[in-house]
Amino acid sequence: MVKFADRILKIPDDPLNEIMKLSSDRDVISFSLGSPSKEAYPTQFIINATNKLLTEDPVSILSYGLQEGYVPLRKNFIEHIAKKRNINAKLENVLITTGATQGIELVSQTFIQDGDVVLVESPTFFAALPVFKKYGATVIPVKMDYEGIDLNDLETKLKKYNPKLLYIIPTFQNPTGISLSKERRIDICELADKYKTVILEDDPYYDLRFIGEPVLPIKSFDKYDNVIYLSSFSKILAPGLRVGVIVANKEIVEKLVLAKSGADTNTSLLSQGICSEFLESGFYESHLTEIFPLYLNRLNKMVDCIEQFFPENIQMIKPEGGLFIWLGLPNKIDTQALLQISSQKYKVSYVPGSIFFINQSECKNYIRLNFSSNDESTIELGMKRLSMVFKDYISGLSF
Amino acid sequence: MVKFADRILKIPDDPLNEIMKLSSDRDVISFSLGSPSKEAYPTQFIINATNKLLTEDPVSILSYGLQEGYVPLRKNFIEHIAKKRNINAKLENVLITTGATQGIELVSQTFIQDGDVVLVESPTFFAALPVFKKYGATVIPVKMDYEGIDLNDLETKLKKYNPKLLYIIPTFQNPTGISLSKERRIDICELADKYKTVILEDDPYYDLRFIGEPVLPIKSFDKYDNVIYLSSFSKILAPGLRVGVIVANKEIVEKLVLAKSGADTNTSLLSQGICSEFLESGFYESHLTEIFPLYLNRLNKMVDCIEQFFPENIQMIKPEGGLFIWLGLPNKIDTQALLQISSQKYKVSYVPGSIFFINQSECKNYIRLNFSSNDESTIELGMKRLSMVFKDYISGLSF
Repeated sequence: MVKFADRILKIPDDPLNEIMKLSSDRDVISFSLGSPSKEAYPTQFIINATNKLLTEDPVSILSYGLQEGYVPLRKNFIEHIAKKRNINAKLENVLITTGATQGIELVSQTFIQDGDVVLVESPTFFAALPVFKKYGATVIPVKMDYEGIDLNDLETKLKKYNPKLLYIIPTFQNPTGISLSKERRIDICELADKYKTVILEDDPYYDLRFIGEPVLPIKSFDKYDNVIYLSSFSKILAPGLRVGVIVANKEIVEKLVLAKSGADTNTSLLSQGICSEFLESGFYESHLTEIFPLYLNRLNKMVDCIEQFFPENIQMIKPEGGLFIWLGLPNKIDTQALLQISSQKYKVSYVPGSIFFINQSECKNYIRLNFSSNDESTIELGMKRLSMVFKDYISGLSF
Repeated sequence: MVKFADRILKIPDDPLNEIMKLSSDRDVISFSLGSPSKEAYPTQFIINATNKLLTEDPVSILSYGLQEGYVPLRKNFIEHIAKKRNINAKLENVLITTGATQGIELVSQTFIQDGDVVLVESPTFFAALPVFKKYGATVIPVKMDYEGIDLNDLETKLKKYNPKLLYIIPTFQNPTGISLSKERRIDICELADKYKTVILEDDPYYDLRFIGEPVLPIKSFDKYDNVIYLSSFSKILAPGLRVGVIVANKEIVEKLVLAKSGADTNTSLLSQGICSEFLESGFYESHLTEIFPLYLNRLNKMVDCIEQFFPENIQMIKPEGGLFIWLGLPNKIDTQALLQISSQKYKVSYVPGSIFFINQSECKNYIRLNFSSNDESTIELGMKRLSMVFKDYISGLSF
């Protein structure tokens, strides 16, 4: 009886919901999340920051705020994040969002209309796809290799589809963990300018580099002022606070603010204040220093387990940072089909590779593994279980 | 060069931005806001609640949460709010939003497509209008009288336009302060069912009744399960936390959750946790008891000032609660045109009536005055200034 809008009928059920349900059993070791380590949450810092904010200036924190975001946070983002990434930004270029998720939503509302094309890396962050589609986009995948998005395929598709947006996660990409080379970052700016496509750079993992030298964001090479940059506090501080940041040219930010106004007026000021304190106090940097050994040990542990317990004919890209390992299993394995038995019988869960593709029949033998949320002994136990899922399947014992 | 989507080009500049700018001078007494009293923020309670939440279960508060919202808050909302308002709701009927603003946004995404009609009271909450239009709606006004929306005009327009939604603020309506009678609330359910229109009931002021007997929400008479109910913590606890609530039938909530997922994944869990504690601790009730005399005194003070300082040929509806007084001045006064000089020369600001109308040439002689945000002596000073603005104008001295 209820007549819903077409746009909402385009959204399939969230695949993560099913995975989360399968992981909710406390005995299941979950490698499914994209969260920081629970042990790494700086709880006492957040308590202290809250007390300080609400003692010093409760009215600013508890009243309505500017749609663009809390001014101290925007200033601290420019000073402590943007500058270090060689991103040139004034206050008018910075908009605070309710998580980077809202960044994707607001950009989609502001740019996409029926018939527009959005190019994405293949594979890509699955949760962005229904948002692009909700606003009428056709999503076209672009090939990747070990250095990130393939520029030949990108140019072919820029030429062919005249896309409105290129959505890209250049650093420790979700799900592959691959980082785009500097040369390609520079070339992408040229290509996007040539074909008049706006780049939506999603960069939540930038500061989670444990190995090797940082490569600056695409936005830092953005001489055409054509990149919309998304940052997030969810992967370093805490996702529950829901704070992200957009940096873009003034004309774009002004339009995004109109969308933000209707979306939720402003992001929680308590959350924004905590993030601002996190940067201003210098705790951001010391927190990174503290979590790096923890994360690197977990990454190394998971890589060791893969090498030790898994067959040799697997494909693994060992990332230099981020939260995920992308693992290719023998071709005959359908990881989507095995997820239920993996969770329910073997008590270990992962995200099946196919959900990161537009054409979900691709890479059915891949899985995305989060290495940050479990301690090393749990990683070892979980990876043993996981290796058994696939060994048993291959040897045909249990199925 | 940048090609924005048509939907974002439909949004005019936010009229409140201009008003806020004019009110930002510290010498200006602002009657423009829709906020609780700053003195009434329960700051110490919020500090204590934060400490408790982050000490007892930091992982639940700092990690990603359910899209539907924090379970304790949804349970407490049912127990402490919905039941008292005679609203029948299970967990599956309750979705937490990032302020009630997001409620309007999610409902619009989920229901409205190009060509749909949304009926609204005339006048109505101006910030809802661009959201309906962004998603393709034609907005049609329905007349009001002193008992709220006019049922004859409503039925005429239900018949004529076959609208998708009826957006209505039945209790202490924004901007008029009028409350819809019980009889009309019951009849509206029948009419909406007869014409197959969904009712979007926006009810942020329900508990701000200082005088008279409560009238239950339309949702409490919703035997056809056809009302989407929006509630908010912004007007009682603190707008800066950004927490609202939707109550609707399961089928609708499931679709709204798909929109919520893309919009911001989940509402700030710290904000949700604070609201949950606010209800569970019983502090909600005692806070209401504490703020009522404060608000009633301010309301009475503003009414006294109007009677004392303003000419006799004005129209005032004295509300029994809420945050606003709606004031009709002599016909020749254009309150929009006078706002700048009022703010800059007389140092007092208000919201001009015309922005609450679809046709902004209506009721140019009206203003909306907030009585909650200033103390009584400031109200007296501000109202004296305001009366001078209009007296000077009428006597032709200053213009």
